[in-house]
Amino acid sequence: MYLETLGSNAKNAKYTIGLLSTEKKNEVLKKVSDAIVKNKDYILGENAKDLDVAVANNMHPGKMDRLKLDDSRIEGICEGIRQVIKLPDPIGRVLDSYKHPKNMLITKVSVPLGVVGIIYENRPNVTVDAFALAFKSGNVVILKGGSDAINTNIAITKIIREVLKAEGVDDNAIQLIEKTDRETTTAFMKLNKYVDVIIPRGSAALIQAVVNNSTIPVIETGSGNCHVYVDKDADVDMAVNIIFNAKTQRIGVCNACESLVVHKDIRDKFLPAVKKKLDEKNVELRGDSFTKEIIDCKDATEEDFGTEYLDYILSIKTVESVEEAIAHINKYNTGHSDCIVTENDEAAEKFLNGVDAACVYRNVSTRFTDGFEFGLGAEIGISTQKLHARGPMGLRELTSYKYKITGEGQVR
Amino acid sequence: MYLETLGSNAKNAKYTIGLLSTEKKNEVLKKVSDAIVKNKDYILGENAKDLDVAVANNMHPGKMDRLKLDDSRIEGICEGIRQVIKLPDPIGRVLDSYKHPKNMLITKVSVPLGVVGIIYENRPNVTVDAFALAFKSGNVVILKGGSDAINTNIAITKIIREVLKAEGVDDNAIQLIEKTDRETTTAFMKLNKYVDVIIPRGSAALIQAVVNNSTIPVIETGSGNCHVYVDKDADVDMAVNIIFNAKTQRIGVCNACESLVVHKDIRDKFLPAVKKKLDEKNVELRGDSFTKEIIDCKDATEEDFGTEYLDYILSIKTVESVEEAIAHINKYNTGHSDCIVTENDEAAEKFLNGVDAACVYRNVSTRFTDGFEFGLGAEIGISTQKLHARGPMGLRELTSYKYKITGEGQVR
Repeated sequence: MYLETLGSNAKNAKYTIGLLSTEKKNEVLKKVSDAIVKNKDYILGENAKDLDVAVANNMHPGKMDRLKLDDSRIEGICEGIRQVIKLPDPIGRVLDSYKHPKNMLITKVSVPLGVVGIIYENRPNVTVDAFALAFKSGNVVILKGGSDAINTNIAITKIIREVLKAEGVDDNAIQLIEKTDRETTTAFMKLNKYVDVIIPRGSAALIQAVVNNSTIPVIETGSGNCHVYVDKDADVDMAVNIIFNAKTQRIGVCNACESLVVHKDIRDKFLPAVKKKLDEKNVELRGDSFTKEIIDCKDATEEDFGTEYLDYILSIKTVESVEEAIAHINKYNTGHSDCIVTENDEAAEKFLNGVDAACVYRNVSTRFTDGFEFGLGAEIGISTQKLHARGPMGLRELTSYKYKITGEGQVR
Repeated sequence: MYLETLGSNAKNAKYTIGLLSTEKKNEVLKKVSDAIVKNKDYILGENAKDLDVAVANNMHPGKMDRLKLDDSRIEGICEGIRQVIKLPDPIGRVLDSYKHPKNMLITKVSVPLGVVGIIYENRPNVTVDAFALAFKSGNVVILKGGSDAINTNIAITKIIREVLKAEGVDDNAIQLIEKTDRETTTAFMKLNKYVDVIIPRGSAALIQAVVNNSTIPVIETGSGNCHVYVDKDADVDMAVNIIFNAKTQRIGVCNACESLVVHKDIRDKFLPAVKKKLDEKNVELRGDSFTKEIIDCKDATEEDFGTEYLDYILSIKTVESVEEAIAHINKYNTGHSDCIVTENDEAAEKFLNGVDAACVYRNVSTRFTDGFEFGLGAEIGISTQKLHARGPMGLRELTSYKYKITGEGQVR
């Protein structure tokens, strides 16, 4: 009943939110940003309550860090809103327009998805980010955040809803599921009567749970077992540089490199060079037997090749051809980002066409898979599935379309 | 294990099928068409076996008709393949291309979805149609047809696989699930390790079962509770003509009109006129109390407004404004096709923007929602959801995209 009410509220709200003008949406977002700054002490106070509970429960320091807000993070959140304000409105674009032989006009225009459900972990910044992106694209959100951030999320949602009300906009444009038990979350995933799409943001386990249980269309995001393949015709210095960047520039992100694939003909030159560089950051290497003939490292198991470490660990596989590299990557990747380093055009073309991933790179670090880097602006996630959107999902990827057909009484 | 093998076969096949040239794909499709003609007697013989069982089981004549093949239906199937051959190849289109500030080139290109699962009822023509559309768009199919058509489907699939093999193409581009028990079908819906998208084609019950059970992304198709709203400023003759066409031109299709919404100010003039016309086809009318004040008809219940009759029955609701019409339609429609008949631009704009459906019409029959009519060519279905594709799904809607990024060693 609780979720039914939320769902029905959201469905009602979507009909008005989807029709707001760009000016009105930007004005509301500006006021939300102002209200967050104005109510900073209230938000930080509620966040402190969540942190107290987290300390009492011996939360892992990494998790605690993601939960914690402070002045500079509040500023970061508001900067995020300002960026969304600057982005073009994705709604109402004419995607196609043509005359039917019987003379009626068929126009394909972009429209909001409608009601977007987002299930995420203990990152209160997502509460604002997700609302801002959804609202700018004319969508309504129902948010289910992590239970450890509940006080912070309630505070943020309350502030946003007050702004919406004051601006004469349906405040059900954002609703937070305040019940944090698992049964409610699972029931939320079955709300396909009201929710048009659900986007899980977080661990592989969270995403899998949503995929397995949801009757709402799901967009899978974020899981990234990314590869760099060093071809026999690679520039060794470039390859070392790309892997060092892709592995170590930021280890906890989904576009970090987790596995290195090396052509046998270049392993003598390349492996000692890359090991030397990665030793600077104490990266643990786990290689197959042909790797171990050249450098000193741990054994890589079958499981290693399928693991997204998000840590200073790298698996290494040797291959005899670009075809074998492609087959290995297609077996173990998550469809996120994979790279070939080569000066050979033919090998590059085979790789870019043959590897099944949202983003395929030649001689560029996988770390560029990102909405801002791709010119899409802020993103709601990186899609690793093929339906609807693939790769970074910005405002445009939060839209659908409809056909408008106008005529003078045509019948079939 | 049986399904695991099928899934793994399909996943292997997708890497080569997705890279076939347009010429090769068209050549194979031409040979498939030839082989179907050449093996007509074999196919009709196997179809006769299915029909014998159907007769013994007292199958409903309508269902039996859909199951039955004959010379002219075989010719229709081959004509369908020829049409697909003529359509442009949707793979390899450059959707976007731009330079990143660091000078690498980002290109967004269309690629196949990969492995497409199709679950359908006892219509053996779908076996060929679905294969042809999927193959032309570089996809691999796993088909689960209705159990009553099993002999026919096995025969058709065998012929297609023989052509593929003779042409040096992986014959796992088409695989039929030959086990027809319910457990196998349900297990198929969980094969998200191998299958990229699943498209159910058939009754609302079939579609609902797939939505409820699948862990594979689903595209919902076909369910159409379509409305025609006759505004106070409608041209009465045009309105009568459109409804007569949308209701009676073909009653069993998803874009047929099932419900009429009438503005009170026009009911006196319009309702007797439309009743007179619909009486020609003995359409049963079920109206609300305000309708019954004007014309003689049965009572419409709440259930009527939510029913896709696919029959000579029409529900009628009266409203006091275009806003009330929009709200009523958004409550009961299935997001397929809805129409306003009006000479009033303001009302039309409100309706086209406000009604949440794949296709919204002004002064045109809903019967035009169709891949050929929209210039998309043959369709795999009409999507009634918002993710990925909405409305008629042709070859382009069977594609995804990938980003190819090429540079000279760029790192973040």
